[in-house]
Amino acid sequence: MIVRDRPAAWRLFFAVRGSILHRIKWEVTTTVCIAIGVTILHGRVFDTKITLTPIPFSLIGLALAIFLGFRNSATYDRWWEGRKQWGDLVIHARSLARLSLNHISPNGDDLPAIQVRRIIAFTHALRHALRGSEDCDSAAFLPENERRDVLNSVNPPNRILRAFSADLAAATAQGRVTPMMAVSIEENVTALAGVQAGCERISGTPLPFSYTLLLHRTAHMYCLMLPFGLVDTIGFATPVVVGLISYTFFGLDTIADEIEDPFGMLPNNLPLDAISRRIEIDLRDALGETDLPEMLQPVESCLM
Amino acid sequence: MIVRDRPAAWRLFFAVRGSILHRIKWEVTTTVCIAIGVTILHGRVFDTKITLTPIPFSLIGLALAIFLGFRNSATYDRWWEGRKQWGDLVIHARSLARLSLNHISPNGDDLPAIQVRRIIAFTHALRHALRGSEDCDSAAFLPENERRDVLNSVNPPNRILRAFSADLAAATAQGRVTPMMAVSIEENVTALAGVQAGCERISGTPLPFSYTLLLHRTAHMYCLMLPFGLVDTIGFATPVVVGLISYTFFGLDTIADEIEDPFGMLPNNLPLDAISRRIEIDLRDALGETDLPEMLQPVESCLM
Amino acid sequence: MIVRDRPAAWRLFFAVRGSILHRIKWEVTTTVCIAIGVTILHGRVFDTKITLTPIPFSLIGLALAIFLGFRNSATYDRWWEGRKQWGDLVIHARSLARLSLNHISPNGDDLPAIQVRRIIAFTHALRHALRGSEDCDSAAFLPENERRDVLNSVNPPNRILRAFSADLAAATAQGRVTPMMAVSIEENVTALAGVQAGCERISGTPLPFSYTLLLHRTAHMYCLMLPFGLVDTIGFATPVVVGLISYTFFGLDTIADEIEDPFGMLPNNLPLDAISRRIEIDLRDALGETDLPEMLQPVESCLM
Amino acid sequence: MIVRDRPAAWRLFFAVRGSILHRIKWEVTTTVCIAIGVTILHGRVFDTKITLTPIPFSLIGLALAIFLGFRNSATYDRWWEGRKQWGDLVIHARSLARLSLNHISPNGDDLPAIQVRRIIAFTHALRHALRGSEDCDSAAFLPENERRDVLNSVNPPNRILRAFSADLAAATAQGRVTPMMAVSIEENVTALAGVQAGCERISGTPLPFSYTLLLHRTAHMYCLMLPFGLVDTIGFATPVVVGLISYTFFGLDTIADEIEDPFGMLPNNLPLDAISRRIEIDLRDALGETDLPEMLQPVESCLM
Amino acid sequence: MIVRDRPAAWRLFFAVRGSILHRIKWEVTTTVCIAIGVTILHGRVFDTKITLTPIPFSLIGLALAIFLGFRNSATYDRWWEGRKQWGDLVIHARSLARLSLNHISPNGDDLPAIQVRRIIAFTHALRHALRGSEDCDSAAFLPENERRDVLNSVNPPNRILRAFSADLAAATAQGRVTPMMAVSIEENVTALAGVQAGCERISGTPLPFSYTLLLHRTAHMYCLMLPFGLVDTIGFATPVVVGLISYTFFGLDTIADEIEDPFGMLPNNLPLDAISRRIEIDLRDALGETDLPEMLQPVESCLM
Repeated sequence: MIVRDRPAAWRLFFAVRGSILHRIKWEVTTTVCIAIGVTILHGRVFDTKITLTPIPFSLIGLALAIFLGFRNSATYDRWWEGRKQWGDLVIHARSLARLSLNHISPNGDDLPAIQVRRIIAFTHALRHALRGSEDCDSAAFLPENERRDVLNSVNPPNRILRAFSADLAAATAQGRVTPMMAVSIEENVTALAGVQAGCERISGTPLPFSYTLLLHRTAHMYCLMLPFGLVDTIGFATPVVVGLISYTFFGLDTIADEIEDPFGMLPNNLPLDAISRRIEIDLRDALGETDLPEMLQPVESCLM
Repeated sequence: MIVRDRPAAWRLFFAVRGSILHRIKWEVTTTVCIAIGVTILHGRVFDTKITLTPIPFSLIGLALAIFLGFRNSATYDRWWEGRKQWGDLVIHARSLARLSLNHISPNGDDLPAIQVRRIIAFTHALRHALRGSEDCDSAAFLPENERRDVLNSVNPPNRILRAFSADLAAATAQGRVTPMMAVSIEENVTALAGVQAGCERISGTPLPFSYTLLLHRTAHMYCLMLPFGLVDTIGFATPVVVGLISYTFFGLDTIADEIEDPFGMLPNNLPLDAISRRIEIDLRDALGETDLPEMLQPVESCLM
Repeated sequence: MIVRDRPAAWRLFFAVRGSILHRIKWEVTTTVCIAIGVTILHGRVFDTKITLTPIPFSLIGLALAIFLGFRNSATYDRWWEGRKQWGDLVIHARSLARLSLNHISPNGDDLPAIQVRRIIAFTHALRHALRGSEDCDSAAFLPENERRDVLNSVNPPNRILRAFSADLAAATAQGRVTPMMAVSIEENVTALAGVQAGCERISGTPLPFSYTLLLHRTAHMYCLMLPFGLVDTIGFATPVVVGLISYTFFGLDTIADEIEDPFGMLPNNLPLDAISRRIEIDLRDALGETDLPEMLQPVESCLM
Repeated sequence: MIVRDRPAAWRLFFAVRGSILHRIKWEVTTTVCIAIGVTILHGRVFDTKITLTPIPFSLIGLALAIFLGFRNSATYDRWWEGRKQWGDLVIHARSLARLSLNHISPNGDDLPAIQVRRIIAFTHALRHALRGSEDCDSAAFLPENERRDVLNSVNPPNRILRAFSADLAAATAQGRVTPMMAVSIEENVTALAGVQAGCERISGTPLPFSYTLLLHRTAHMYCLMLPFGLVDTIGFATPVVVGLISYTFFGLDTIADEIEDPFGMLPNNLPLDAISRRIEIDLRDALGETDLPEMLQPVESCLM
Repeated sequence: MIVRDRPAAWRLFFAVRGSILHRIKWEVTTTVCIAIGVTILHGRVFDTKITLTPIPFSLIGLALAIFLGFRNSATYDRWWEGRKQWGDLVIHARSLARLSLNHISPNGDDLPAIQVRRIIAFTHALRHALRGSEDCDSAAFLPENERRDVLNSVNPPNRILRAFSADLAAATAQGRVTPMMAVSIEENVTALAGVQAGCERISGTPLPFSYTLLLHRTAHMYCLMLPFGLVDTIGFATPVVVGLISYTFFGLDTIADEIEDPFGMLPNNLPLDAISRRIEIDLRDALGETDLPEMLQPVESCLM
């Protein structure tokens, strides 16, 4: 996630960090070069004048804007829903800590603390599962005898929840938790399972590919043909206008690509590291630990 | 579901897999041929000049784009809601497994495992019911004496949930489950019933047909009449522009058709096989089985 | 609900069933006739030339399209929410059957079955209440001594739920249901009350009437004045274009009118008969009945 | 709420009831008069020709339509959410009646009936609180000793819920309600608290005022300047077109103003009186009363 | 939040309070000055005529309007969701007070009142945490021995909920609350945790920055280049039109900026002070206090 203030006025045009420009520079350059060529040749290709007026572009442009707008909204909704899932993770992680520490009676053993640490492990394991990275964080928060089992599991986060549940069931059978509270804690565990399945859904099911392909194609055709439509009317201003339009269309398209899977490591993706750290701090604070890690800070305006 | 990376730059125009083009090739070809004919005849039909300027098309085109955009969003929402229902299935399947295995006390018999296997059977039965295909998967996960009964039932998935519930009630009466946990497990079963009814709703209630018909008709009329409106202004570029516009309009329309019932077997439909397999793996892993099937992989970029 | 396949290609233009055309034929005919008159008179009325260019229509047309699009989405959302309410009815009807049959201990009497049959009666009573038709279906599923009482009630579906609840309370007092399960069953009954109130809301609160009137008026003025704007540019093609535009605008407007109250008996309304029948089949199957009615089939492509 | 059928065909133009026209007649008249003046002067002001073509209006008009469309949707969503809150009130009022009468054992005293009557009182008190009107209805449904206390409270509806809850707690302590059912009833009370807070939210938090002001200003500037843009092209048809455009823009803007606070007494506001009456009838019927009030009927097509 | 009536008719143009104009005055002035310069020079820069017609602006303008519209809706949704979170806070604060006072049996000590006062403290602590301001309000409502601990905590609001939960667990263990009611109260506490996490989510995750930057850039380029496109057609009316368009585009953009983080202290932000005060009044009234503070009133039309 890019974290920076909106640059004021004229500095706006020179902002580089956070801009999508560097990812579309070749595409924009290409269309601008073609536009320059077309302008120099006055729209002629091999001595044949290509007669395109702006009219077809206003017909296509509208449709294109509406459909790009649709794709934009759809990917943004995915991104924001991804953030909501991690917000739910914050809620239920804190609640499970609160309930475990207060409503499981401490019987000499460390069960409440073990359960809370499992939630931290779940958070890290889920993050690594979503990003496809190796999980080097969660083991530290699991009971020693469970570590290998979890990390080798086909589904480590789910495996952790099953361990949580098994210990809860045992504690309930021993009368350390009321049966009602056991149900309530299990409902919070189900909520974590919901976060996991929700994130897997967003991460594993991109927008129907045919949409993406259709819109990419139409947007590219539009920008490639545009110089022929403008050159007769606006002459040597053509490349500037083509550049601005390609920048807007390709830019929005590329942001949509970037946030379609919001759990990745691209600049506009969600700061899962920071949220995980936040959960870790809150839960270790609830355990009474005082040697808490720092909140993550943005590096070069970017919070991972 | 089509699974492939976005092709880069110029390869974009030659991508075939995942393109909707092969489904609309005849319609686009027809409008392009008409456009070529109109261009050759300079807009004359039987010696009568059809005088259409681009103006009517900009009036209609806007309305058409907005209404196609509406239909697009509506079908996409159905597709995404379908995916959410199957995401809920993942959540509650995993939770029912977790609760059954931990909170039903094993009394020598196999009840917890039987219940978990029933959930796998429910997943397969639901998939086959939605696709109208013969159910050859669920029987393997049902107790032998129930198989025929379920498969001949008027509603196999619902029949499975009733069997689950009956056994749960018996176990509760025997004191093997606390009454509170029984209620909580039943709520998860109701959630599965919700998934089933939700999928039946999406699958059985298409968009009001009059919308589809009205928009198809207007879009076709628009593309068929368009050459008359463009030929005087842009001459022999007419077929290219008509081709691009038909490709965009018919393409979006056809994608919408395809994802209207997201549970089918078309390329842009949901990968129910893969999700079912995922559930099967997770639940059999929870049962302690080690001989787990592989995750499904895309075949020719297509995940079923 | 209209149930038919999308007609292919050229047959599209001749489809009659499912088309909204027959409901707007007089309005479209009127605007086309006016357009023909204007074309013949070259835009002159009483020797005065009405000088309208297409420009005002592109100003108004855009606003009109956006606002019609808004009304469209709003009514479609009502229709789809109506369908969701009936989907919830399916969920909770099945769940109440499952819970009643499994978790109310049979004490020699028929209570579980009576409760299930009450749910079927509720379904029928709700459908008739929403449609304002006479209820000839629900009595068969009610205990004999309750029938008159229910049918004469100020609110029959609610009356049925109260009877369900009273018997449930009695059974709970006798220890035939655990207090937890009683609460859970009551929550499902509340969900049915929610379906009823949700349907009453959609059915009793149309879109603010001023919207409908304003949009009708603007759309009609637009189509009536349009020929004066087009005739100078496109000559005798005017009536065709006016016809196509009126067909699109009036058509979308009329579909919106039709689905605004989705529980009626118009072709694009929801198939409540079929859904009720589905519930009846599932619940009677759960009761072990074998003489089940058939699923409803579409009559002339229309499922009621 | 305006309750009337859509007027047919030509009668559409003469409908007065339900039209927003009477609220914007001065604004429309002003712009039309200016348009007439501009037309007569051929766009000259003090011998200076104001040269405006339609082009700027098509640039601004589009943006304006999209932003008015946004404001429209946002206010409509508020209106519909307001209706949903009152729909929830119907659900939970009926459910609380059903639960109180069936699941609180009658111990000689009238507690169940007192609780049901409190719900009726809550409905009336909430309506008066939202409308800022004096509450002359709720007292009749409260126990005599509570009336003054409630009416003088800083928050009468909330005060009623507290009394409900206190009596429920006492009954639970006496064993007249199971602890599980007490929780379930309290959850319904919380749902009523949710309705109250939801209505307060809609009623107390209008759209950010800067939106409203910005859009009003742009819309007025647009309509005032429009004649200068049209007069050269369409001559004496200018006032008609300006009138139609102002009618559409100001009309939609005014409807949005009217439904922004949906709980008021304007024609397009929600029929809270009718919904309250409906609840009163249903709950008194549940109490076995036979002397029920009539459903409210629209007065001059308007249901309050 | 700005609280004022919509100014009537001509006063509309002179309203200053609540207008966004003062925040964009420099940007609008700049574009107007450039437009004046361009008009005086007849579109010539260094003796070179810049030939831009309005056509490119209608191509870009449409896309821009749609994308600004998207950003607008997205930020408005954040603002309204923020308000909903605080509405949920109202619901659950009132419910926790109602449940604590009625369903925790008073055992001589002050526990129920302490719990209610903790909820007030939570409200104030959350507000200060969101605004990054120093918390000088919550201490007064906390037990003396907890104050320092809470204020020094890494997460004061969450710390308060943990204290609430610990005391509840103790009371449950002593039998002063039924185990069912304890679960229900904890669910309300979890709802408060949900409000906190929801507010943190909105406050900590702005819209992807690349969107904001892209749209700012395109909007600025558009307004800076616009005079060249208009000057040939509308001459000295250019600065007026450019001024109106910049006012609309920059205005909407700036309102979106302002409400993106709805918990700040800007005029269009949410009135958290007033909502907190409302909760404080209701909860102290529930405690039987009579010396209640006043509701907050707007200061210069602005409610904080």
